[in-house]
Amino acid sequence: MTLPARLTGVIPPVCTPFTPDHQVDTASLVRLVDHLIDGGVSGLFVLGSTSEVAYLPDGHRRVVLDTVVGHVAGRLPVLAGVIDMATLRVIDHVRTAVAAGVDGIVVTAPFYTRTHPAEIDEHFRRVAAAAGLPVFAYDLPVAVHSKLGADLVLQLAADGVLAGLKDSSGDEGGLRNVILRARDRGDITDFSVLTGSELTVDSALWMGADGVVPGLGNVDPHGYVKLFDHAAAGEWEDARAEQERLVRLFELIGVGDPVRMGMSSSALGAFKAALQLRGVIKYGVMAPPQIPLDTDEIAQVGKYLVAAGLL
Amino acid sequence: MTLPARLTGVIPPVCTPFTPDHQVDTASLVRLVDHLIDGGVSGLFVLGSTSEVAYLPDGHRRVVLDTVVGHVAGRLPVLAGVIDMATLRVIDHVRTAVAAGVDGIVVTAPFYTRTHPAEIDEHFRRVAAAAGLPVFAYDLPVAVHSKLGADLVLQLAADGVLAGLKDSSGDEGGLRNVILRARDRGDITDFSVLTGSELTVDSALWMGADGVVPGLGNVDPHGYVKLFDHAAAGEWEDARAEQERLVRLFELIGVGDPVRMGMSSSALGAFKAALQLRGVIKYGVMAPPQIPLDTDEIAQVGKYLVAAGLL
Amino acid sequence: MTLPARLTGVIPPVCTPFTPDHQVDTASLVRLVDHLIDGGVSGLFVLGSTSEVAYLPDGHRRVVLDTVVGHVAGRLPVLAGVIDMATLRVIDHVRTAVAAGVDGIVVTAPFYTRTHPAEIDEHFRRVAAAAGLPVFAYDLPVAVHSKLGADLVLQLAADGVLAGLKDSSGDEGGLRNVILRARDRGDITDFSVLTGSELTVDSALWMGADGVVPGLGNVDPHGYVKLFDHAAAGEWEDARAEQERLVRLFELIGVGDPVRMGMSSSALGAFKAALQLRGVIKYGVMAPPQIPLDTDEIAQVGKYLVAAGLL
Amino acid sequence: MTLPARLTGVIPPVCTPFTPDHQVDTASLVRLVDHLIDGGVSGLFVLGSTSEVAYLPDGHRRVVLDTVVGHVAGRLPVLAGVIDMATLRVIDHVRTAVAAGVDGIVVTAPFYTRTHPAEIDEHFRRVAAAAGLPVFAYDLPVAVHSKLGADLVLQLAADGVLAGLKDSSGDEGGLRNVILRARDRGDITDFSVLTGSELTVDSALWMGADGVVPGLGNVDPHGYVKLFDHAAAGEWEDARAEQERLVRLFELIGVGDPVRMGMSSSALGAFKAALQLRGVIKYGVMAPPQIPLDTDEIAQVGKYLVAAGLL
Repeated sequence: MTLPARLTGVIPPVCTPFTPDHQVDTASLVRLVDHLIDGGVSGLFVLGSTSEVAYLPDGHRRVVLDTVVGHVAGRLPVLAGVIDMATLRVIDHVRTAVAAGVDGIVVTAPFYTRTHPAEIDEHFRRVAAAAGLPVFAYDLPVAVHSKLGADLVLQLAADGVLAGLKDSSGDEGGLRNVILRARDRGDITDFSVLTGSELTVDSALWMGADGVVPGLGNVDPHGYVKLFDHAAAGEWEDARAEQERLVRLFELIGVGDPVRMGMSSSALGAFKAALQLRGVIKYGVMAPPQIPLDTDEIAQVGKYLVAAGLL
Repeated sequence: MTLPARLTGVIPPVCTPFTPDHQVDTASLVRLVDHLIDGGVSGLFVLGSTSEVAYLPDGHRRVVLDTVVGHVAGRLPVLAGVIDMATLRVIDHVRTAVAAGVDGIVVTAPFYTRTHPAEIDEHFRRVAAAAGLPVFAYDLPVAVHSKLGADLVLQLAADGVLAGLKDSSGDEGGLRNVILRARDRGDITDFSVLTGSELTVDSALWMGADGVVPGLGNVDPHGYVKLFDHAAAGEWEDARAEQERLVRLFELIGVGDPVRMGMSSSALGAFKAALQLRGVIKYGVMAPPQIPLDTDEIAQVGKYLVAAGLL
Repeated sequence: MTLPARLTGVIPPVCTPFTPDHQVDTASLVRLVDHLIDGGVSGLFVLGSTSEVAYLPDGHRRVVLDTVVGHVAGRLPVLAGVIDMATLRVIDHVRTAVAAGVDGIVVTAPFYTRTHPAEIDEHFRRVAAAAGLPVFAYDLPVAVHSKLGADLVLQLAADGVLAGLKDSSGDEGGLRNVILRARDRGDITDFSVLTGSELTVDSALWMGADGVVPGLGNVDPHGYVKLFDHAAAGEWEDARAEQERLVRLFELIGVGDPVRMGMSSSALGAFKAALQLRGVIKYGVMAPPQIPLDTDEIAQVGKYLVAAGLL
Repeated sequence: MTLPARLTGVIPPVCTPFTPDHQVDTASLVRLVDHLIDGGVSGLFVLGSTSEVAYLPDGHRRVVLDTVVGHVAGRLPVLAGVIDMATLRVIDHVRTAVAAGVDGIVVTAPFYTRTHPAEIDEHFRRVAAAAGLPVFAYDLPVAVHSKLGADLVLQLAADGVLAGLKDSSGDEGGLRNVILRARDRGDITDFSVLTGSELTVDSALWMGADGVVPGLGNVDPHGYVKLFDHAAAGEWEDARAEQERLVRLFELIGVGDPVRMGMSSSALGAFKAALQLRGVIKYGVMAPPQIPLDTDEIAQVGKYLVAAGLL
């Protein structure tokens, strides 16, 4: 399918289920996609950070693309992350994603190497030229170690290089600045601003964001869709109540012992444990070298699900 | 060939020459290898940061591996960087490097994703198990955004997981600590410590480092080999004089205008301009999205070469 | 006066006007206080970051305290920053602030020295014990280089150590988490959460924040009070419209040339230039070593004021 | 006394002993000064980071200055840190230090506030103008969160603003660059370069550093003086052997449990425990909010002292 001129709604970053030997568990992935579509999401974002894209070899990435694009079969748009260190590597991923039939791609600034605004600008222009598909800039300083400047993003939008921004910077003031300036400028049309936040969806939509890409949306897509729909209907107090329930649920990302594992293992492990407990995916396995949650930690995840009415 | 039990000497990180359309310029790469062997280096490190590995697609990486391993033909050991975000992706690069016939691999901690010492430990153990070749840990916090702890490195060395450390952290106190503790412990043998510094080679060798991996060694391999040989012969004052000449030469990395480009473009651009001016490689082209040096900046590189007696 | 059990409303961080020889311009400071009170603010925060507290010697700090507390004369509460590197130095500032008659103090985590959650906890407990006045934790990672954890803040609130939080971290998700958990816990009462953001006041209030501490409130206190009042009355669309006007105005912080000065000089210089152009303070002078705006940059500030209807 | 044109030798950063109620333990401080002078040091640096300067209120700082300057009575030069956030606050400390009779001052870049090279330049110029005493720039990025650029430092040296550099950045390549360029330029004379490193003293001296300011020099001044003297006599292998003994001793800074305390508490706690165990100071007390070492951790410090032949 073609992307709408302006992508809106809930577009969850789809987790990548694994088998115990670290292959993509395609049966679970299909069930997860169904779970999300059943939840009412308006698009899917595969191969993002929540998908463990950094951990997935190219072969796994292709399996994910083919499985999801094939199963979705045009029912809703699929965006794909093309996450890699610099331009030519990203363009390789773009070719694979285009061949698989995705509807848009999501691109970060260069990382690992030290970069510069002029180089980031050049990067997006070259990637977009190679893609021939809508390009979303992915602002994720915690991973990429640079922040996309508002001036840069807006100029790329005005020049037709970017179709949108996925802002996972956590900088809501900066997000609002981009939204407002994109609206005030006369030269930007059909630019979608998506927030990666789990916790401030109602306020991001209030500020004018078009859509939301919450990792926690894997666990509770119905909740985020309900939240989005309330906001779209102007039922802001209902939206807030739903958001607050999800804020409480999001605490599950902290179940992992920080002496034993990093925050990524804890958060992604909790998402996968929750999906397993809810019967959506078969295993809670994460890609190596992440550290698995232990039995007690998984039991805590279960308590959060019960408290949120999900189990 | 097999790596010596303890790798020593100058092992430069080999630049990757490009054609104007950003293919690997294999003819220039072969000339560069000859230039380095002629300089007396004791090994080659391909696909490191100085090789623009972050910018090279897998196809380019394979061309580099095949070209260099083929041309060297066992005359000296070739180490290969297998730089990627996490374990399974790194293992894919390992397979390619092993198939190409390299003699050892160089591995960073996971990056892009947030990591943790326990995850870094697991990462190195899994990569080493898959490699079946000597593994060097690559400590490069400026790129990877975490520092390898001395306890972690030494335990991996004692367990036979690591054959060496390439320390590009710039933390000479930490380097010394590793060298001394590796010597003091009874359970570590044949562990090579290499420094990535261009500026403190004499003192790193003085502290007990085994070898050096200087990016500037592309431009002046004879200089670094002379420096190493003086140190090996106990001619420390001669070593220092040579090191000081190279410190002055290293200033060339700052020729690029910081308003117009990042430090990576400036430094790698200067190395490539110097190699072009010295007649070793055909083009000064860098991989996108790096910003090229302009005519004035290249002329400044020339002046540094003249001052160092290289042009 | 005594602080209300729960501080609410607009509590601007008061700029510190200077004479050309870098003394506190008390006449201008009094006019600025009148300007803010006239704008309808519900409290004043002196000696915060926007007050250039890092630049003010103790003598200047005392002049500010005495001038503002004296002029306010109990008409509204005055909070004072007691910004310094560690506990005993902070307690010295606390004594001065208490003697001057302030109504509450605002305290950061230790900085300059490396710190730890257990040390931050100890710090707040000791400072609060010495103060005998309500203590607000000041979360400002851009200055302090550590982030106050939610668990730490909430436990200190439950233990009666903290009366509130001034969150200038820019992390709205974290802010919401603190607000919601403070409400959900049964053991925290009368804990005020204030946001330091200029750009997300409506959404912070929507999430449940009690008050706002916007630096830009110096320039346009009437605007922020109008915004707060709309929010308090449930007129959220009016609040948003006012917030959007202020987002556009806030662009003035970027007038300074980044090649010539840092962001602090540019932002504080713009606030002071605006106050001078509006006739509130006599000089736009900043404390050394900040770099003054030039004539063109000041003219740009004027244009922003005109666009916002303030000149 | 007046500083020599070029300060050389071992100039330890003097610990500040406390009584149990956190007053300066002047009797212990005098014994510590005697211990250092007995060790053969060539100067003293009070009120540096190792002195817990960030934790010391102005009253404590004055007691330290008066006690040390009075007791030394001109027998060797005394440098004083004037550590504070920005120019006018630093100048207040300068006045106190000058009045107390110190021989030089040690100044960092501004911190807490965001800064810029032009502002750092202005800062040093204003502080030096106010001091009328030799000024040493203190490069300590771990505390100050900016790095002093070589160009900036060298220009300030050429302009007579700086008498020296105390480099605690850990960047030995940068240190060497400054040393070499200061020597190569024709316009810099009598500029002392001191390293704050404990672990690379022999190599820093080898590169041309004039003196060393090791925190561990409190515990073992005789060792560092022996090391310096060997280097000065060209007995580099003896210098290295002594350095290696001190590298092993320095491991004591890691005795504190990282779950329970920060690195500052662990390192400064270990220095003070060592001084107490050696009978130099009466209490191991640190300023709040640092966390004290427990009995087991202190016992480990003792073992390091025994191994180093100091107990």
